[in-house]
Amino acid sequence: MLRSLTGAAMFAAASLPALPASSQPASPAAAESIHERAERLRDEALGNDTLAWDITEGLTTEIGPRLAGTEAEARARAWAVGSLRALGFSNVRIETFDMAVWVRGEERAEIVSPFPQPLVVTALGNSGATPASGITAEVVGFETIEALEAVPDSAVRGKIVFVSHAMAPTQDGSGYGYFGRARREGPSIASRKGAAAIVIRSIGTDYHRNPHTGVQTWAEGVRPIPAGALSIPDSEQLQRILRRPFPVRMRLVLTPRNIGTRQSGNVFAEVPGRDPSAGIVLVACHLDSWDLGTGAVDDAAGCGIVAAAAHRIMRAGTPLRTIRIVWFGAEEVGLFGGYDYLRRHSGDNHAAIAESDFGADRIWRFDSRLNPAARPAVDRIARLLFPLGIVAGSVTEASGSDIGPLSASGVPTIALRQDGTRYFDLHHSPDDTLDKVDLTQLRQNVAAWTAMLAVAADMPGEFGPVPARQ
Amino acid sequence: MLRSLTGAAMFAAASLPALPASSQPASPAAAESIHERAERLRDEALGNDTLAWDITEGLTTEIGPRLAGTEAEARARAWAVGSLRALGFSNVRIETFDMAVWVRGEERAEIVSPFPQPLVVTALGNSGATPASGITAEVVGFETIEALEAVPDSAVRGKIVFVSHAMAPTQDGSGYGYFGRARREGPSIASRKGAAAIVIRSIGTDYHRNPHTGVQTWAEGVRPIPAGALSIPDSEQLQRILRRPFPVRMRLVLTPRNIGTRQSGNVFAEVPGRDPSAGIVLVACHLDSWDLGTGAVDDAAGCGIVAAAAHRIMRAGTPLRTIRIVWFGAEEVGLFGGYDYLRRHSGDNHAAIAESDFGADRIWRFDSRLNPAARPAVDRIARLLFPLGIVAGSVTEASGSDIGPLSASGVPTIALRQDGTRYFDLHHSPDDTLDKVDLTQLRQNVAAWTAMLAVAADMPGEFGPVPARQ
Repeated sequence: MLRSLTGAAMFAAASLPALPASSQPASPAAAESIHERAERLRDEALGNDTLAWDITEGLTTEIGPRLAGTEAEARARAWAVGSLRALGFSNVRIETFDMAVWVRGEERAEIVSPFPQPLVVTALGNSGATPASGITAEVVGFETIEALEAVPDSAVRGKIVFVSHAMAPTQDGSGYGYFGRARREGPSIASRKGAAAIVIRSIGTDYHRNPHTGVQTWAEGVRPIPAGALSIPDSEQLQRILRRPFPVRMRLVLTPRNIGTRQSGNVFAEVPGRDPSAGIVLVACHLDSWDLGTGAVDDAAGCGIVAAAAHRIMRAGTPLRTIRIVWFGAEEVGLFGGYDYLRRHSGDNHAAIAESDFGADRIWRFDSRLNPAARPAVDRIARLLFPLGIVAGSVTEASGSDIGPLSASGVPTIALRQDGTRYFDLHHSPDDTLDKVDLTQLRQNVAAWTAMLAVAADMPGEFGPVPARQ
Repeated sequence: MLRSLTGAAMFAAASLPALPASSQPASPAAAESIHERAERLRDEALGNDTLAWDITEGLTTEIGPRLAGTEAEARARAWAVGSLRALGFSNVRIETFDMAVWVRGEERAEIVSPFPQPLVVTALGNSGATPASGITAEVVGFETIEALEAVPDSAVRGKIVFVSHAMAPTQDGSGYGYFGRARREGPSIASRKGAAAIVIRSIGTDYHRNPHTGVQTWAEGVRPIPAGALSIPDSEQLQRILRRPFPVRMRLVLTPRNIGTRQSGNVFAEVPGRDPSAGIVLVACHLDSWDLGTGAVDDAAGCGIVAAAAHRIMRAGTPLRTIRIVWFGAEEVGLFGGYDYLRRHSGDNHAAIAESDFGADRIWRFDSRLNPAARPAVDRIARLLFPLGIVAGSVTEASGSDIGPLSASGVPTIALRQDGTRYFDLHHSPDDTLDKVDLTQLRQNVAAWTAMLAVAADMPGEFGPVPARQ
């Protein structure tokens, strides 16, 4: 049954529209310059791309949530293999790896006194568990993680710590690093101080009753405690309650479990190039998602964008370089797929790498980190992106999530940066669903990736080595 | 403990700012005309009202959800009595009544096949229950309630009916009547046809994973079946799944219970008028809320608005007519408070009645249903409201929720209609929380109610009798 439902059926070759004659020059490079062809492919994508949408719709509908290491993520890999093969890509395969898997249990919170009422909570990744009946303790609130760090242990021992640090939206998403500390480090700090549990204001920017989960990792030697995130309306409610002159007691039920070692994996597909010595252009996304939503903007859309762009290059003729698509597994829970790729493929001849993992809204900035001698390629890409409303950004800083370890090792990296203004309204929350994806903006993404790939896969010369960081 | 936390503390007389001298003419009517005074009080409210906010904040924070007939609604009544007394109103009291109470249980839904994944569901009011382990059945979808009505019983017998009728937002909220049929009548229609259960697309206009509950009443002789609402993203997901060529099976767990007869009640407060024979101006809202949110826009804000406006009239001097504030109980589950009021008070001398129960966004239209001889009062109110951006609407149609039965009996009625464009984003959902209330728009409401009351409570003459409907 499963096999018949994978993307194989959805993307069977028969369902692909025949290419119009104008898209099939017998010898692409002969008829038009690289730049002219990139412009044409870009504009076709902008006008009529449906593949990125169909992949996003198919993966979120036919699989839905796909937590790393679970049976749902395995179904997603089968769906991905079926889809990528049906689309005509080569060398479609899975590279598996083992990982420790944590799964969500029951999750409830309520104010017991002075104002009894329920609160909406979700467990953070790797949270410890309460007993099935929960724990009840006094709540002590902190406006920042620094304020928590500053108090003596006696102020929080045996209590439920609450950190209400409020994240602000930014176009480049740069607030995530700073405000995300409450999630990434707050649980370990609270545990070290002897707290019974910690709840944080969701690392998010919306005002809906949808809490934002996300991974946190216990610092060395720290005992796991229950660690949750309240939705933002609930967090502000708790702040109001704490402002009244009464002690506040909360009951918290979080029963996640570590279920041991399971398999995850990265899904590969390729467009073989004309010259194996010219290197590989890696375009990436991640296939896994958090379990609360269907992972539409994080990151089904990214998989749709990179595959749709690569598919357009493939249909336009054999590129100089091999394009390698990787839909990574187990990104959300610790970049396990990225590290597995690094372990196996750091010796591959990567000409350039890029990843789409910041939603489905329009790209606004083009960053790169290549050898200065590759500046003509950077300028060409910039000129192709400008008509899409994309500005030229850094030429010394570019990275990505799964490709982060590889990028840090010095591989030439390109980043097409998406608008993050509303990304953290949805990120890791139940609200990350297909209805949040805008087709017009998605097409702008495919157009930008197609133009970038048309240059990166075909322009002669080297993109590396990348100069060492200052 | 409870008593010390009620609004008595929050609204102790000491916390009320002293009135500026300009607000305290020794004899209100002597120093200025009714119109001039109404303008002044209106503008003061628009500029500086805090009471409506404080009531909304206090009720939603210190009580939170307050389902009709529950202990939480009883706490809300105690809070209301404490608050209204502390604010200096007269004749503050509760009139209790008994009612049958239904409470929510567990609620979960999942697609079992072909694409296993969870869906977000909530039970509709008076829903029947599944076994604790749920029921699993094939889903059959209908785009409208009329399409469900049209099929033979055999098409749905033993199945889970799904109605996906999509509500559109309107400023006047008029879509609720038509689209709300799926909730109000769908369950009885499905049960009559032998369906195992029904789930509907939430009667709402948002795109968040927050389902909208609401009351439905089983038609005479109909067997209760489990009846739920999916959030709108989940509803559209189910529609996408149903469009694939595979049978769809759902597991549904809804375990609400009827817990028998409990007490609810209406909370009264008054501003006694100078002339008992001049009648009573009733201003209303409802104190109960659905249990999923904290009932901020439905209807804590309404209670804040009418009390704040009455409080401004009271502070400006004794009005001609008595102003009676009623914070009704058990509105959401069947207007039980309104019917109890009708039973006890239909013989009271009501000069005019009005209710605020459509959120906290700005008022955009003024409707009334008075005797044509009262047209000067209507025109005066309209002139006072125009500067607030409020247009003059109907002079033959006006009603309200709790006051609906009384209005239908022929009592002169005024309606200050709020903008409903985003009301059904929040209505009856977990997202009905304080953060959705905008202080500037709330003040516009208080200003409009204050101006209206300044005329309705002081302008000589009769507002009734209301002509019989055509």
